[in-house]
Amino acid sequence: MARIAIYPGTFDPVTYGHIDIIKRIASLYDKVYIAVAESEQKSPIFTIEERVQMLREAAIDLENVEIEGFDGLAVDYAVSKSAKVVIRGLRMISDFEYEFQMALTNRKLNPDIETVFMMPNESYSYLSSKLIKEIAMMGADVSKFVPKNVEKKLKEKLGK
Amino acid sequence: MARIAIYPGTFDPVTYGHIDIIKRIASLYDKVYIAVAESEQKSPIFTIEERVQMLREAAIDLENVEIEGFDGLAVDYAVSKSAKVVIRGLRMISDFEYEFQMALTNRKLNPDIETVFMMPNESYSYLSSKLIKEIAMMGADVSKFVPKNVEKKLKEKLGK
Amino acid sequence: MARIAIYPGTFDPVTYGHIDIIKRIASLYDKVYIAVAESEQKSPIFTIEERVQMLREAAIDLENVEIEGFDGLAVDYAVSKSAKVVIRGLRMISDFEYEFQMALTNRKLNPDIETVFMMPNESYSYLSSKLIKEIAMMGADVSKFVPKNVEKKLKEKLGK
Amino acid sequence: MARIAIYPGTFDPVTYGHIDIIKRIASLYDKVYIAVAESEQKSPIFTIEERVQMLREAAIDLENVEIEGFDGLAVDYAVSKSAKVVIRGLRMISDFEYEFQMALTNRKLNPDIETVFMMPNESYSYLSSKLIKEIAMMGADVSKFVPKNVEKKLKEKLGK
Amino acid sequence: MARIAIYPGTFDPVTYGHIDIIKRIASLYDKVYIAVAESEQKSPIFTIEERVQMLREAAIDLENVEIEGFDGLAVDYAVSKSAKVVIRGLRMISDFEYEFQMALTNRKLNPDIETVFMMPNESYSYLSSKLIKEIAMMGADVSKFVPKNVEKKLKEKLGK
Amino acid sequence: MARIAIYPGTFDPVTYGHIDIIKRIASLYDKVYIAVAESEQKSPIFTIEERVQMLREAAIDLENVEIEGFDGLAVDYAVSKSAKVVIRGLRMISDFEYEFQMALTNRKLNPDIETVFMMPNESYSYLSSKLIKEIAMMGADVSKFVPKNVEKKLKEKLGK
Repeated sequence: MARIAIYPGTFDPVTYGHIDIIKRIASLYDKVYIAVAESEQKSPIFTIEERVQMLREAAIDLENVEIEGFDGLAVDYAVSKSAKVVIRGLRMISDFEYEFQMALTNRKLNPDIETVFMMPNESYSYLSSKLIKEIAMMGADVSKFVPKNVEKKLKEKLGK
Repeated sequence: MARIAIYPGTFDPVTYGHIDIIKRIASLYDKVYIAVAESEQKSPIFTIEERVQMLREAAIDLENVEIEGFDGLAVDYAVSKSAKVVIRGLRMISDFEYEFQMALTNRKLNPDIETVFMMPNESYSYLSSKLIKEIAMMGADVSKFVPKNVEKKLKEKLGK
Repeated sequence: MARIAIYPGTFDPVTYGHIDIIKRIASLYDKVYIAVAESEQKSPIFTIEERVQMLREAAIDLENVEIEGFDGLAVDYAVSKSAKVVIRGLRMISDFEYEFQMALTNRKLNPDIETVFMMPNESYSYLSSKLIKEIAMMGADVSKFVPKNVEKKLKEKLGK
Repeated sequence: MARIAIYPGTFDPVTYGHIDIIKRIASLYDKVYIAVAESEQKSPIFTIEERVQMLREAAIDLENVEIEGFDGLAVDYAVSKSAKVVIRGLRMISDFEYEFQMALTNRKLNPDIETVFMMPNESYSYLSSKLIKEIAMMGADVSKFVPKNVEKKLKEKLGK
Repeated sequence: MARIAIYPGTFDPVTYGHIDIIKRIASLYDKVYIAVAESEQKSPIFTIEERVQMLREAAIDLENVEIEGFDGLAVDYAVSKSAKVVIRGLRMISDFEYEFQMALTNRKLNPDIETVFMMPNESYSYLSSKLIKEIAMMGADVSKFVPKNVEKKLKEKLGK
Repeated sequence: MARIAIYPGTFDPVTYGHIDIIKRIASLYDKVYIAVAESEQKSPIFTIEERVQMLREAAIDLENVEIEGFDGLAVDYAVSKSAKVVIRGLRMISDFEYEFQMALTNRKLNPDIETVFMMPNESYSYLSSKLIKEIAMMGADVSKFVPKNVEKKLKEKLGK
């Protein structure tokens, strides 16, 4: 039976930290669905189509990885894909608290879905989409933090 | 002399976690005032009247508990009720930091008022009004997290 | 009905931080029992009699405070004193975690006993008996951290 | 290809928190090896044989779970079992830090082995073997925290 | 060769906590530039000119301290002033995480600039501009937290 | 006037993380004294002479760095070297708490000495002497974590 995992997030935009986690998931599961959340309440700067597109370009070499937009609960999305596992990356204490809250809530909503946590390479432990947008807005060169296509899109979007 | 405590918060909306704390306070003090803060800057989804009403329904069996709206400093409200104690619930590290900051500030504003902290049942340690609104917006069944009347009001408000 | 609280700890030795908390408790409860735990597994440098004695000297002016040694569970001690409340001081994140663990465990052992947390004055937030022993051993002047009688006892004990 | 995971630990003694994690792992992997570490430097109160035995009794109904003692590096043990995954339970912030340190170190020692983290049921989030030994030593009834056979062994060992 | 440091921040408005850090920096470096960030995305309540002006009044006695507004990356500002050091104040765990993220990002952007952290006096460890604005809005007397000129400006701005 | 800093620690043994911090300090100060603390209460596995010697070999190319053993308070050692600054490395939250406690205590003991914090390269953020000793004892290859001479000494000491 195929082992299927979902990796939900906003990915506004995808960073090398996300990509590192995606590669690790891809090596452990038969099939991985990256679920790009609409996340309206976070006012993302990229549309969901743009975010899906940037991830597709980033994960093009990973054959067992599929990228989709979704709007709803991660546990419902997991069920729709026959996945038993939701993967989340952990980098910091503040991640940890929010993620635990979310995982326990998800467990209450659907006890059949398990949340498991993975760690990015320590070189990416400080990366966050939010920080990257902040410094890109101030004119920083973000080529060390995101792939080339994302860097280009960020420049266009921020008009810098 | 009656022992009086206030329990201030935004309660947008009240959760089973809040109700658990309220019951604990009610068993330790002669009189408890639940002070529903206006909290305009947090843009609550329920009006202060709605939040007071939902709490009244939730605490209807607790005879020594009274619920009121207020707008101002918790320490001033405490003085107006002859309370020497402000109760706050603690669930997580991030609570802890904000609460300590607030408690030390309140102590500077009025050294006669003491802030004391209580813990909800561990089954509610992951609950927050914010998270509940988030998942309700995505269509989750929140009946495990809030009382029936709150669930109904949430559905109306979010049009789901 | 008298409101009774217990404040358990090892107090090896009592610091100005403990004394600050004791005064706050004494102002909120009718009667306070300070329960000096044997704590053999922590290898205290003072005997339980010495620790009780130093606390008695420190709390001599607080008429509703009584100090006793005890060996056993804090919840059992609370019951023996008809106390419904166990008080614990919180200073730091690491306190917070251990204290929460302990409080939830105590709640499982006896659901009638409530643990409540209080904060010392921020001037004492960095104080710990462990740190004081460490620096006293290196010859530091600890008169800013502990009462005179404790300072003297520390010097005797450490032969400095 | 079989999905194999190891779950290393000291288990001195096994608690309901560990058992909860073990069940979750057993449902996600084809084969699980529970690796009971010698952990001499932690001075366990039970011998490694006793700890293995208590775990075997606890996991008797889980057909894909095997329990063994080991002395060495978790990553080497994983390789010896053809496991690609080391599972660790996370309950608290302090776990989190130590576990991340260990996971990053293990990744440097063998980049082919991935550490993934799982959460126990929130009812067990406060449980630790250390705390249980502490309160058992003080005469507490630990039947809510450990299986019957472990409770009995604890009483024998502690002579209570 | 002169030792030059920059101390960047939003300072909306300056508090006694900031002033405590500024004095400490001024005693350790030959020249200190306080860099008031535009920080549009944080919607400051004071204009950058007002924030610079309040800081100038607060630091008027510190001869080696200069205050300027800036818009861009802290590391670029540091280079423009021939500073090798960016100073940041640390008060709490949540500061710590954000600051580490930012410092590691700055190091990637310019490895020649070092971020160093200093602690305010413990009496100011709970102070934050955000909290002060919050309580000033509720009518609190903030004279214990900010200098007189800032208190006056806050009242004008908030119309209280 | 020369800028002098001290960097105290146990260094049992020195790791690449320490060496990274030492290089950063050496680039910011005219003279750096590395103060190897006796730290008897931590039962180091290397003698103070061995720890000093390993550090000297590690810092041989840094001309403004001097290594010495010391027994006493860091603030007293700083005064004896005319240093105004004590440097401490910060890697994790648990470091942060202990370090803040120590820094505030040192400030009380001598307000003229300032503690400043620096961060190692993120590649070394997970390294600790304790962890390295633990895994070396289990037979791990520690050549990625410590210099060659330290690796050799560790093997000798642990008889592996």
